[in-house]
Amino acid sequence: MTAMEALPLRPELRGRSPYGAPQPPAEHRLNTNENPHPLPPALLADLQVALAEAASGLNRYPDRDATALRADLAGYLTRTSGEQVEPAQVWAANGSNEVLQQVLQTFGGAGRTALGFTPSYSMHPILSAGTGTAWVDGHRRPDFTIDPAAAAAQVREVRPDVVFVTSPNNPTGTAVELDTIAALYEATSYDDGAGVLVVDEAYTEFARTGTVSALSLLPGRPRLIVSRTMSKAFGMAGLRLGYLAADAGVVEALQLVRLPYHLSSLTQAAARAALAHTEQLLATVDLVRAERDRIVEALPGMGLTSVPSDANFVLFGHFADAGAAWQALLDRGVLVRDVGLPGWLRVTAGTTEETDAFLTALGEVAPAHRSSLGGSTA
Amino acid sequence: MTAMEALPLRPELRGRSPYGAPQPPAEHRLNTNENPHPLPPALLADLQVALAEAASGLNRYPDRDATALRADLAGYLTRTSGEQVEPAQVWAANGSNEVLQQVLQTFGGAGRTALGFTPSYSMHPILSAGTGTAWVDGHRRPDFTIDPAAAAAQVREVRPDVVFVTSPNNPTGTAVELDTIAALYEATSYDDGAGVLVVDEAYTEFARTGTVSALSLLPGRPRLIVSRTMSKAFGMAGLRLGYLAADAGVVEALQLVRLPYHLSSLTQAAARAALAHTEQLLATVDLVRAERDRIVEALPGMGLTSVPSDANFVLFGHFADAGAAWQALLDRGVLVRDVGLPGWLRVTAGTTEETDAFLTALGEVAPAHRSSLGGSTA
Repeated sequence: MTAMEALPLRPELRGRSPYGAPQPPAEHRLNTNENPHPLPPALLADLQVALAEAASGLNRYPDRDATALRADLAGYLTRTSGEQVEPAQVWAANGSNEVLQQVLQTFGGAGRTALGFTPSYSMHPILSAGTGTAWVDGHRRPDFTIDPAAAAAQVREVRPDVVFVTSPNNPTGTAVELDTIAALYEATSYDDGAGVLVVDEAYTEFARTGTVSALSLLPGRPRLIVSRTMSKAFGMAGLRLGYLAADAGVVEALQLVRLPYHLSSLTQAAARAALAHTEQLLATVDLVRAERDRIVEALPGMGLTSVPSDANFVLFGHFADAGAAWQALLDRGVLVRDVGLPGWLRVTAGTTEETDAFLTALGEVAPAHRSSLGGSTA
Repeated sequence: MTAMEALPLRPELRGRSPYGAPQPPAEHRLNTNENPHPLPPALLADLQVALAEAASGLNRYPDRDATALRADLAGYLTRTSGEQVEPAQVWAANGSNEVLQQVLQTFGGAGRTALGFTPSYSMHPILSAGTGTAWVDGHRRPDFTIDPAAAAAQVREVRPDVVFVTSPNNPTGTAVELDTIAALYEATSYDDGAGVLVVDEAYTEFARTGTVSALSLLPGRPRLIVSRTMSKAFGMAGLRLGYLAADAGVVEALQLVRLPYHLSSLTQAAARAALAHTEQLLATVDLVRAERDRIVEALPGMGLTSVPSDANFVLFGHFADAGAAWQALLDRGVLVRDVGLPGWLRVTAGTTEETDAFLTALGEVAPAHRSSLGGSTA
């Protein structure tokens, strides 16, 4: 094997490591925000039929435009948001990572700039780098919320071509106010150009009651893009199905960079089968939210705190040394995520048994590892 | 809907159209080089089991490194080429388009250049544009073969970061001599840098007896990449599974740009099931080759000719107006591909019935549409 350094890699890739959570063996894997609930038996039966049918035509290319799937996704968004979303406003790809990569290929790229409010989904800067798009860190308040006026001012100053807002934010968990999103959209209109605003709503189905999707802002905002995924609330991380809703012109533009036949026949068939079981699938969302809230409520009793969560995970702390606390939890069979925020760790809310195991382990770990700031918010 | 032009697209995307063969309705669809043979029943039965098992774990992310699949692909390459290919030398993605896009993200990109010998697979320049890589057309002889000395000289002059050679070439059909590939590889070593050489072998399983894969050139050539697909000979265009073999260092480098969890659990499971049926699947290759040769042999009797083909398609001509001949064939229910080469059309070799229909239609069309150059090669 030739060392990577001896190959003619792009200079900015040198010395980098592949993205991905460390995956040490552990009894309870609460580090990648998967949905622990297996798919319901009725869906598994339908999937078997749908996949067998798709398999029988596998010698043919899939529908290049995923027409039927996009219609089903539009129907789902319309039903759950109350906003009318047309199939021509929806685009799908292999995971929201590919959706966002296509957005960057279309509206970002070499000589252009993306801005996101860190800490946020760490793939946004990586996807930007992978498409040659420069990256600028946006500012947050110390409690990890976005100050609308300061954020809009920063956007007007930097004039990014693509702005990312994650709502609910990952890894901190809190949903972003619609007013903030509207202010950011306004700010992306420059005197001699404009940027697109991407609201990454991967976790939105887990949001607390009263949270409104950015889908409601789409009318009249042709540069607003709302991305979603079937990996989280739908419990289908293995399917790799991400999608977005936007002005139909945006969807048309994305087709200039999408790889032809990018979505396999199996993916399209399985996603459609799952969307026909939306209600059953989303039933697990309430269970997961209850576990999340149980985690949040148990933390103060251990001298710990959390960031308000609208997601299927909780950012909890403070620890004197988050890495040491992470290891201590792993030593007790519980794998959480060290997201690189000093003092904080992220845990996925899963089954009751997983929450029990996590809280038991955390109860043992907290006294030795919590910091003196433990009881207060950041 | 907002017009695309009103959106802040990258300037080089303006005015472009999405890639994709026109798909007018037709009784016989011989335009995208699919394998018309449905998958064998034994494989369909195994696929059903494999997909049902994968579906039951769909709530979990897939194996990020596709370890088992890459081992199976390495086994297939080793068995069929006689060259020892290790799993660490193999990489897979959603179609060879994604594989090649990852190669360009790693070794091409903004400020870098790719070169390919047109006419060739039209996605190579499109993928280059999508990754910000400049594109240079390489020269071919009038008979569409590559002159090794002239090609190597052009590479030394242009100094591309990525060189594409398609073998067998698409849309012309002819395999490239190993000596030519070796000469091109030598040429990509510059006095102060180097490029990678990508041999796109999407159609190699259809090559005429005696053709040797570029896999045999891998030992000692760390910048050589051989890409393959399961869309053609394996008859699984709907699966979207492309792969490559190269030095393990190249595979390691690609993981810096691959999207995490890019290959779904369903894709990995289905591809593995298919690889366990390699012999049965490749049995259709001989049938397709026989139809290809039947097309080639029938052409002179119609005052037409073809380019020597090692693929599952034939480039045939000459026509006074290829577009008019394309329409005349479509009027008779036969959809072939107008690849934009004046005087030529491309037809996929499929079933005996498809060949019969094509030759019957062509017999009717040829007298009015063939050009005076009809009987000679280009």
